[in-house]
Amino acid sequence: MTAPDPVAAAPAPAGVLPLRPELAGDVPYGAPQLDVPVLLNVNENPYPPSEAVVADVAAAVAGAARGLNRYPDREFLGLRGDLADYLAVESGVRVAPEQVWAANGSNEVMLHVLQAFGGPGRTALSFAPTYSMYPEYARDTHTRWVAGRRTDSFDVDPAQARALIAREAPSVVLLTSPNNPTGTALDLSTVREVLDAAAQVPGGCVVVVDEAYAEFRREGVESALTLLADHPHLAVSRTMSKAFGLAGARVGYLAASRDLVDALRVVRLPYHLSAVTQAVARAALAHAPELMAQVGSLRDERDQLVLDLRDRGIRVAESDANFVLFQVGEGRHEIWQGLLHRGVLIREVGPEGWLRVSVGTPEETAAFTAALWEVLGI
Amino acid sequence: MTAPDPVAAAPAPAGVLPLRPELAGDVPYGAPQLDVPVLLNVNENPYPPSEAVVADVAAAVAGAARGLNRYPDREFLGLRGDLADYLAVESGVRVAPEQVWAANGSNEVMLHVLQAFGGPGRTALSFAPTYSMYPEYARDTHTRWVAGRRTDSFDVDPAQARALIAREAPSVVLLTSPNNPTGTALDLSTVREVLDAAAQVPGGCVVVVDEAYAEFRREGVESALTLLADHPHLAVSRTMSKAFGLAGARVGYLAASRDLVDALRVVRLPYHLSAVTQAVARAALAHAPELMAQVGSLRDERDQLVLDLRDRGIRVAESDANFVLFQVGEGRHEIWQGLLHRGVLIREVGPEGWLRVSVGTPEETAAFTAALWEVLGI
Repeated sequence: MTAPDPVAAAPAPAGVLPLRPELAGDVPYGAPQLDVPVLLNVNENPYPPSEAVVADVAAAVAGAARGLNRYPDREFLGLRGDLADYLAVESGVRVAPEQVWAANGSNEVMLHVLQAFGGPGRTALSFAPTYSMYPEYARDTHTRWVAGRRTDSFDVDPAQARALIAREAPSVVLLTSPNNPTGTALDLSTVREVLDAAAQVPGGCVVVVDEAYAEFRREGVESALTLLADHPHLAVSRTMSKAFGLAGARVGYLAASRDLVDALRVVRLPYHLSAVTQAVARAALAHAPELMAQVGSLRDERDQLVLDLRDRGIRVAESDANFVLFQVGEGRHEIWQGLLHRGVLIREVGPEGWLRVSVGTPEETAAFTAALWEVLGI
Repeated sequence: MTAPDPVAAAPAPAGVLPLRPELAGDVPYGAPQLDVPVLLNVNENPYPPSEAVVADVAAAVAGAARGLNRYPDREFLGLRGDLADYLAVESGVRVAPEQVWAANGSNEVMLHVLQAFGGPGRTALSFAPTYSMYPEYARDTHTRWVAGRRTDSFDVDPAQARALIAREAPSVVLLTSPNNPTGTALDLSTVREVLDAAAQVPGGCVVVVDEAYAEFRREGVESALTLLADHPHLAVSRTMSKAFGLAGARVGYLAASRDLVDALRVVRLPYHLSAVTQAVARAALAHAPELMAQVGSLRDERDQLVLDLRDRGIRVAESDANFVLFQVGEGRHEIWQGLLHRGVLIREVGPEGWLRVSVGTPEETAAFTAALWEVLGI
């Protein structure tokens, strides 16, 4: 007498999961998370929050924790008001709290935009090379994805952009300024031309200017926030991940017309922003002046890095961000690997032959350049 | 000479936003958030975290805050391991950390499920009356939504379920047990029949048993976690919002086969779960025994409330959750309003003629029953 084989008894047919065909073979998005001394690969702020920020964050969370049995405020107008106040100081543009939207990282903000305005039968358009997550947002929302090309200096050509928008009739255009991974800030005249072209798309078209790195822009570079008042189809997205050094807290946001924000409120999952996240963000925003001073030193560090690379004859893209794209020509993977071997992790991303390095502390930047000179033998 | 009218100068055509047609007229989902003394409308745990929990949460967040300039761990296997350990104690079923998935609330977990396995051209199926967010998840992912009917006792009839699944060929079936808003726990034999029917759907079909309220189930009621080992197309979802009293922290999770979880990893937004959320959840999980004791008293409170309502001749659905659905017949809105007028907010949800009340503290429950006897004149 033989006992029944429990494995044979289970139904468990292979391939029983109805995975969507367009996801087959896809791997989870994300840069390698490696344990390396110098991490300059994901454009993080190298400075951890000060002990003053840590103390205020902990106190704010303790306060929120006492009410965690209750659902959070779905509308989080307190946080939206604080973000509006911050934008007014940072860019000189005043918006109402109801014109601000926030979510768990800019990528959730962008998902909300594509859920409301993209989707099946619709097109989202951007200009490559640009942020590599955009096609994933499109895939996740079944939005057709079209990528125009940036110029050789990684700029957007207004005439080409107008023609592409007229031809493709997108419902969403994503402009990244400063652009990732190139660092390029767009001239506002270009943004205006794109807004004009978008306004002529039958059925409407929303233009998102992704300003994740805006705080790092150089003197005289204007934010697209200044165009909000005249353009109800414009959204300007920002994040607390970079300038605020809060990548781990996951707070992205945008400013737009109230109608646009109200559309996002319909597609958000209820209570998407936890009471803890709201408390952490507000505690950090209260420290904005001190954090902005740090941004100033990162800007200086970036400008110096660009000069140092150019001094060695390396071509470097103009950068208004906290990272620098530089050209190494053939064998970029080996160069990336050589840096990693020396304890410096940067990002193999962007056009063929280029590499991207985040701006770290002066010590981290020095470790990077020393390793790079060694690897390149210069 | 007249200055140009700045309002007329702006382009601002009305209706310029390309809102998806299926969203037109929709309002943001959510129960009214009113400022009322007795809140028994959204099935929150009435007990705030203890000072011990608050202190540990604050300390954990302070620790996490020191590294907030870095992105969080995308795979969060620490938290997934803690959740697996908790499930092993709670239900006697041991799963690997890689079989656990978590997100910002069960609703984001469910969105991931429908993004991976639902979508355009596919069908999700459930049995009404059930959780009113499900059709929104379907809408947000362009999944066709089909609702079968529960029986008069709010149960799922296995034969009808089999027939419906065979006819509609869904790629996702959502079974809610204990069901919201009725409180009904499904017999595992029913879940097994649904799993069998799902396994016969060409192309595959995932069955999600939504056990958001599982910890409140009565003695002898088994969790669908016990079926996981034999059913790779089964996912059992849970939440920290209810039994753990952490609705404000937004932590939902599920356990499933590793293949199923790996599919969710592809559609999640990178870094969707903040370092703060991970820290808060892990700190609370360390207090599971104390929180589970509280669940025991809520269960007793629920059973007593059912008896008290029945004593007054009110028909009450069997409940394995932390809420009770009771029948008031015609004029339920006026009764709901009468309770609100007396400072007690419950939920007008479920089949016509029924109302749902969450189990609160003994004092809150007493305030509710006193108000109800008054409103009904019994």
